[in-house]
Amino acid sequence: MKIILVAAIVGLLVSILLTPRLIRVFSREGFGQEIREDGPKTHLTKRGTPTMGGMAIVVAMWAGYAVATLVQVLLGGGGPTASGWLLLYLTTGMGLVGFLDDFIKIRRHRNLGLNKRMKFAGQTFIAVSFAIGCLLFRNGNGLTPGSTYFSYTRNLAWLPLGVVGFVIVAVLLIAAWSNAVNFTDGLDGLAAGSSVMVLGTYVVIGFFQLRNSCSAVLSEAARHGCYAVRDPLDLAVVTAAALGGCVGFLWWNAHPARIIMGDTGSLALGGLIAGLSILTRTELLLVVIAGLFVVEMLSVVIQIVVFRTRHVRVFRMAPFHHHFELGGWKETTVMVRFWLLAAMSATVGVGLFYADWLSLTGG
Amino acid sequence: MKIILVAAIVGLLVSILLTPRLIRVFSREGFGQEIREDGPKTHLTKRGTPTMGGMAIVVAMWAGYAVATLVQVLLGGGGPTASGWLLLYLTTGMGLVGFLDDFIKIRRHRNLGLNKRMKFAGQTFIAVSFAIGCLLFRNGNGLTPGSTYFSYTRNLAWLPLGVVGFVIVAVLLIAAWSNAVNFTDGLDGLAAGSSVMVLGTYVVIGFFQLRNSCSAVLSEAARHGCYAVRDPLDLAVVTAAALGGCVGFLWWNAHPARIIMGDTGSLALGGLIAGLSILTRTELLLVVIAGLFVVEMLSVVIQIVVFRTRHVRVFRMAPFHHHFELGGWKETTVMVRFWLLAAMSATVGVGLFYADWLSLTGG
Repeated sequence: MKIILVAAIVGLLVSILLTPRLIRVFSREGFGQEIREDGPKTHLTKRGTPTMGGMAIVVAMWAGYAVATLVQVLLGGGGPTASGWLLLYLTTGMGLVGFLDDFIKIRRHRNLGLNKRMKFAGQTFIAVSFAIGCLLFRNGNGLTPGSTYFSYTRNLAWLPLGVVGFVIVAVLLIAAWSNAVNFTDGLDGLAAGSSVMVLGTYVVIGFFQLRNSCSAVLSEAARHGCYAVRDPLDLAVVTAAALGGCVGFLWWNAHPARIIMGDTGSLALGGLIAGLSILTRTELLLVVIAGLFVVEMLSVVIQIVVFRTRHVRVFRMAPFHHHFELGGWKETTVMVRFWLLAAMSATVGVGLFYADWLSLTGG
Repeated sequence: MKIILVAAIVGLLVSILLTPRLIRVFSREGFGQEIREDGPKTHLTKRGTPTMGGMAIVVAMWAGYAVATLVQVLLGGGGPTASGWLLLYLTTGMGLVGFLDDFIKIRRHRNLGLNKRMKFAGQTFIAVSFAIGCLLFRNGNGLTPGSTYFSYTRNLAWLPLGVVGFVIVAVLLIAAWSNAVNFTDGLDGLAAGSSVMVLGTYVVIGFFQLRNSCSAVLSEAARHGCYAVRDPLDLAVVTAAALGGCVGFLWWNAHPARIIMGDTGSLALGGLIAGLSILTRTELLLVVIAGLFVVEMLSVVIQIVVFRTRHVRVFRMAPFHHHFELGGWKETTVMVRFWLLAAMSATVGVGLFYADWLSLTGG
């Protein structure tokens, strides 16, 4: 447990200290955010706020993980694991695609970055390589980082995907979640704050899976609810480091934001939570845990589908946080209310996860 | 667990639906907040925002508790308990003192309410009667709602207080916490949001104490860490109802606040968390869990003591959230950052509580 705390604290410190430096450098270089021209008028004041702040989160994640792993090794514990590295790889890779996108936007001074095909190719390459990696690295207990079953709170034995099916599902999940976080990232603190809640939930889940791992010594009753997950501790450590990074970033991203995470941040965080759902076997549960991201994405989908088929707009603007803004809610009101929704989703998600365990262990 | 969820949901619904009605009625009646004349100038715009919104939290708590208890009884479970009622009594009583204070402020159109002696007498009467109640109602296992030992994560066997000592400590705790929440209540959403985190923590603690109650069937190892607390489930139910109430209130209290909780809310919430610390035997741990309230109160104490002895001001203004505002942070920046501090305190508090349990059960 201490190792998780170390990762979180180091992540927090690195991010809270690094972000103001990024603000300074990016401001000097003129790396300001281009605001979508079709967004709410009130957001035009955000133009020029430094972007790519997500970099601080990714660096903080690495730093927190490195220090925690070092401490663990020095204390005679286990070193880095396949699952941990795969998660770091996915997060960083997606962050890198986001960074290229952000950077090109800035250079061309318009709110459109990488051309779609290249962005898609980059994301797909990273997602596919991550998915393949998930099926390699079998450990002594026969566990690979990912599994070829679809999962809710654990593997669903009646829903096998096969190797190819798994890779496809993984790619779709990664694309969906990174888009969902990206859509959510439109108000100061909204994506970062909601991510804090999702990541906090995953630290709890990782820790719980560690304590109730099938390879741990458990009572007969507890074995019924045990988790066949490779490296739950290492997943919790990576997550805690990124969580600390998000909190430190949010410190500066609080309304009125001094810096924006950009695609660098939103794609990295989307990749991270998608990867977590795959590695902890909670693919379907994440839909509840990260419910806010889901409804944000649904609002975009609904808006597009209904407009194309019936030529009416369901929302004044999508993603629908703008709908409420245009309806007269202040940006901060939307932020707080959406955070409350995110907190409730995460709470229900934890509740479902725990209820499943209780039902299996007969608690 | 479901019963806790029922309480939270009912509390949330009642509060989110009742608060706009309070806003309407109080606005019509002119029950607006008088703003402290020596506060930051920017806060003068808050003058006239309806106050006494804490009423919604108290009503929501009762409604959530009533429905949850009814459901529980209908399902053949236990009914209301002494601990639950004591907590409701303390919270409501303190809320009532706060309400009188708020109401007199409004009538006299100044930011000073009940005269100090009457307020003190009211709070003391409620605190003393609560404390005495805590030592009555012994159940079959020999447990009273409170205990005459001072507590950290459980009773400290080396720190007996005796009956008189316990009553004095309880009165001091209730006075201290209600003042602390009261001081914190100076920015939109600050007290309500921080209370959400503290109450969320206590739902977890209550649930954990229920699962690891000394009167439950436990393994030999688990018995070493078991909790001798009367009625942990009922405490979690009351807390969840109040938590739902706080979330519903925060929906409307989000910056820019449409309503303020007033002393009605801050004294009730302060009483609630003080009562929880007494009833769950976590008196000292609450200092960590509710760390933000503690530093807010300390900032006031330090300001006064240093000014009286050395005639210098440590902070530009106390409570120190105003210090940062006057230093150029926007109100929302202070809010988000202080929430992050509150969240971290609560997390560390849960961590300490769990670490104590692990160390005793040899986990």
